[in-house]
Amino acid sequence: MYKRLFPIALAVTVGGGYSLTAFSQVKPQTLVKQRQAAMTLQGKYFYPLLNMVRGRIPYDANAAVRNAAYLDALSKMPWDGFAPNTKDAKSGALPAVYTDTVKFKENQDRLQSEVAKLVAVSKGGSEPAIKAQIEAVDKACGSCHETFRERQ
Amino acid sequence: MYKRLFPIALAVTVGGGYSLTAFSQVKPQTLVKQRQAAMTLQGKYFYPLLNMVRGRIPYDANAAVRNAAYLDALSKMPWDGFAPNTKDAKSGALPAVYTDTVKFKENQDRLQSEVAKLVAVSKGGSEPAIKAQIEAVDKACGSCHETFRERQ
Repeated sequence: MYKRLFPIALAVTVGGGYSLTAFSQVKPQTLVKQRQAAMTLQGKYFYPLLNMVRGRIPYDANAAVRNAAYLDALSKMPWDGFAPNTKDAKSGALPAVYTDTVKFKENQDRLQSEVAKLVAVSKGGSEPAIKAQIEAVDKACGSCHETFRERQ
Repeated sequence: MYKRLFPIALAVTVGGGYSLTAFSQVKPQTLVKQRQAAMTLQGKYFYPLLNMVRGRIPYDANAAVRNAAYLDALSKMPWDGFAPNTKDAKSGALPAVYTDTVKFKENQDRLQSEVAKLVAVSKGGSEPAIKAQIEAVDKACGSCHETFRERQ
């Protein structure tokens, strides 16, 4: 019934540490597609929050709670898609992704940490506090893109 | 710093009910891209669970907990992407998506309900109970695809 999208090798790695050996067996284009999907959905749920901060749309506290919760999950999803075997795959990733892995990991952790704070403050925090944290998430996104993503 | 991926109109609709008028202003290809991203990620996190049930990879209780939680969020993300203005956009969606909206919604609800049960049972449930619920999620996916998605 299902078209299998990726080899079983990837599945083995899900849930625990990531084995480079196992990842090397997954098609690079599958990993790129999955990580880009995570980025697409982060955009879907983050831009409305940013637009609230920018005053382009009315502030909506319920949307902030919901989108923050979605972003909490989504912000954990892209990273295993930047496996070494994707180095030469067509994407917007800059070479630094594969050479400056320590800094790349720091950026991932920073995003997840800022999103976790947004989740917390979105639940009953003041509008200014929530908006400030949305800005913090924005900075985390932008800081990583600056170094690790082609200009768009 | 960010390329805007979709008009502000969409953002207005996030968080509450969905306005058809607002959705009509969003580019169909953006909605299709976002809903396909959600499906891609559902695949990323569901196939390993199914492969555990099928005995293709070892059972991993921690992976079941984590993937179920991700699927809980992801299973809520595709549906607003099937707005009426995407009817003629290139995708695997069958016309029934736009004509049999009641049944389509029932299928969405069924998936979300089965995933919610998986989230619950994954936390300390027995391996057979968890595996049975993974099968139930699989059936929910398949049942919807049968009617609403082109054969792949």
